[in-house]
Amino acid sequence: MPTLVMKFGGTSVANLDRIRRAAKRVGVEVAKGYDVIVIVSAMSGKTNELVGWVNETSPLFDAREYDAVVSSGENVTAGLMALTLQEMNVPARSWQGWQVPLKTTSAHSQARIEEIGTENINAKFGEGMRVAVVAGFQGISDEGRITTLGRGGSDTTAVAFAAAFGAERCDIYTDVDGVYTTDPRICQKARKLDRISFEEMLELASLGAKVLQTRSVELAMRYKVKLRVLSSFEEQSDEAGTLVCDEDEIMESNVVAGVAYSRDEAQMTLRSVADRPGIASVIFGTLSDAGVNVDMIVQDISEDGRTNMTFSLPIDQVGRADKAMDAIKGEELNYTEVVTDSEVAKVSVVGIGMRSQSGVAAKMFKVLSDEGINIKVITTSEIKISVLVDRKYMELAVQALHDAFELDKAA
Amino acid sequence: MPTLVMKFGGTSVANLDRIRRAAKRVGVEVAKGYDVIVIVSAMSGKTNELVGWVNETSPLFDAREYDAVVSSGENVTAGLMALTLQEMNVPARSWQGWQVPLKTTSAHSQARIEEIGTENINAKFGEGMRVAVVAGFQGISDEGRITTLGRGGSDTTAVAFAAAFGAERCDIYTDVDGVYTTDPRICQKARKLDRISFEEMLELASLGAKVLQTRSVELAMRYKVKLRVLSSFEEQSDEAGTLVCDEDEIMESNVVAGVAYSRDEAQMTLRSVADRPGIASVIFGTLSDAGVNVDMIVQDISEDGRTNMTFSLPIDQVGRADKAMDAIKGEELNYTEVVTDSEVAKVSVVGIGMRSQSGVAAKMFKVLSDEGINIKVITTSEIKISVLVDRKYMELAVQALHDAFELDKAA
Repeated sequence: MPTLVMKFGGTSVANLDRIRRAAKRVGVEVAKGYDVIVIVSAMSGKTNELVGWVNETSPLFDAREYDAVVSSGENVTAGLMALTLQEMNVPARSWQGWQVPLKTTSAHSQARIEEIGTENINAKFGEGMRVAVVAGFQGISDEGRITTLGRGGSDTTAVAFAAAFGAERCDIYTDVDGVYTTDPRICQKARKLDRISFEEMLELASLGAKVLQTRSVELAMRYKVKLRVLSSFEEQSDEAGTLVCDEDEIMESNVVAGVAYSRDEAQMTLRSVADRPGIASVIFGTLSDAGVNVDMIVQDISEDGRTNMTFSLPIDQVGRADKAMDAIKGEELNYTEVVTDSEVAKVSVVGIGMRSQSGVAAKMFKVLSDEGINIKVITTSEIKISVLVDRKYMELAVQALHDAFELDKAA
Repeated sequence: MPTLVMKFGGTSVANLDRIRRAAKRVGVEVAKGYDVIVIVSAMSGKTNELVGWVNETSPLFDAREYDAVVSSGENVTAGLMALTLQEMNVPARSWQGWQVPLKTTSAHSQARIEEIGTENINAKFGEGMRVAVVAGFQGISDEGRITTLGRGGSDTTAVAFAAAFGAERCDIYTDVDGVYTTDPRICQKARKLDRISFEEMLELASLGAKVLQTRSVELAMRYKVKLRVLSSFEEQSDEAGTLVCDEDEIMESNVVAGVAYSRDEAQMTLRSVADRPGIASVIFGTLSDAGVNVDMIVQDISEDGRTNMTFSLPIDQVGRADKAMDAIKGEELNYTEVVTDSEVAKVSVVGIGMRSQSGVAAKMFKVLSDEGINIKVITTSEIKISVLVDRKYMELAVQALHDAFELDKAA
């Protein structure tokens, strides 16, 4: 029988009623003839409670014990989901990560999946079981200890199962009904996409769209797993939600697929840094060691052997960055001052159409200029252009770009 | 190094503060030079919450899924306890049942322990770990599924570990400070016992004393595990609490060790039952099939081929028993009526001294008679005498017996 993977996030299994609702969706797919692997998260709030206890007990916790504690929430949901399915006369059983087994690295609290054993579950499918309910987000290390994959690891679990079992599709049930051209909360004309390519989804995920975790999209792209994002709170047809798939499977698409934003950015400039080889590696090596996630980087043209170095970073890491730069000021950099602007935001347009169509960047800059929005920093990739602007213009920039690229209209 | 097993019940690990308190007690024993195995229950209330969810989801639940769900509470406590110990610089790690492994039968939700592997934990003790924190109440079946030992299974887990590891003692930390001659709530003169024999403890446990679970005492008796019951809420010395041990280790003891009671009893009499061979097996076989736990049984002397059959049972099983008796009334029993008295209680005196000293029963009956208390049913064993009396006299009976056997005074 063909296999389908269905993943339900925390809000979709937040209580017994919602578990029942999710189980009904599973029942629909079983009735169509699928063997189903269901990946469940913990009931919403449970993981946070457990993490809170660990942090309160031991601020510098042993990650192996952290994993043993926080993985328990998924086990509860998996058992309850199996019981709910059995009540609906669907043959089902639960599996914890170590029972599958889902083998991972020993990087506790942020382990990576190494291998998924398909033998045990397939044997049960062979005996007539129709649904394997698997506790997401967890696995087992070579040492036989429980590991977790880090936050959002349940999406990754789902995609990895779909790859391992050659599933026809991996359906991610969540509290939104798909992927939008931009955030509907700041742009009324935002339109749900029927399809989006892996590459575009990956860019949108890493640019701040919260629908899917970046790692799960990477994995889906690598193993060509068809991913569908859809709502667990609405009646669903076969065509519901958004399909994330290979670009070959998308017939027509707009040049730009979506507009993403990230509100809480800051920009720092080191003025008049000595411009000599290796200076960038000193600056960004130091920042990296200090745990600062630098995003965009711009270096001015050098003048008299000195230059200005500008970079963007999450606003809550400014303190850390300041401290790190202060520590190496005298030594080598010898910059005159650090200028920080904490009132900026990043706006990006993403689309695989950019590869073949020129002029997207020029159009983007013109749209912003026409609205009187000054661009502070620019970075580009093959399918993405990002700019840093004053935060007060963020919504305006998103709306203007959404209009200009006609994202409210399907291709 | 000598090994000690310490078990902490749900109220002793109810929150992070109490876990810290328990961990300090563990630290004291580690400092004395013990390798310690800590058995933990779920935080109080957690298991009930999980059981409630299972029952609501599926009234006739699959016990394998029930076990997968309800065992998660202990896993959380085990991890948090290990972290707390680490914070105190005590090398510790947590173990779930399947990691030990603690192998059980496949009788899910009421599994019995078959074997405890000591290799993994001993290897870690060899590497310098000082405390193995084990999630109580759970194990793994031959099929690789999680099992639970039934309510109170954490005591049993503790004793089984003490037996498997040849522990010097098994300390059961709870919310009372030991075993009393009777319930201090109904008899002010109740005195804490320093020592009590396994046999006496077993009788007291099965007669309603809630300090220790019957199965754990049986196991301790079989493997000669020294059990100590003590409070997790008080500062403890080496001599605190009550030691449950072999009778050889008790130098002097009173003839009667304690007075137990069970409040919620009922008594049923089948009047004028046909008295022929096999009639008792029909009655009690039927009751057993109906899930009625019959306790005391008395059959009157037969007269004209008919007799009265009286038995006691928990008050909440009267409805079930009535129905069961009704169903076979016509067939074979042909009794005239069922008389039910739901206003009775059981009072028992227990003591290994009874074996060698006669007259205890006679003294007990005289004490009750002097107080004007009528005895309805009597049963005796080698070290126990139980009587059924009107419930309104229960407290009076306990107090009078406690006085008469001078239980307020040590031997």
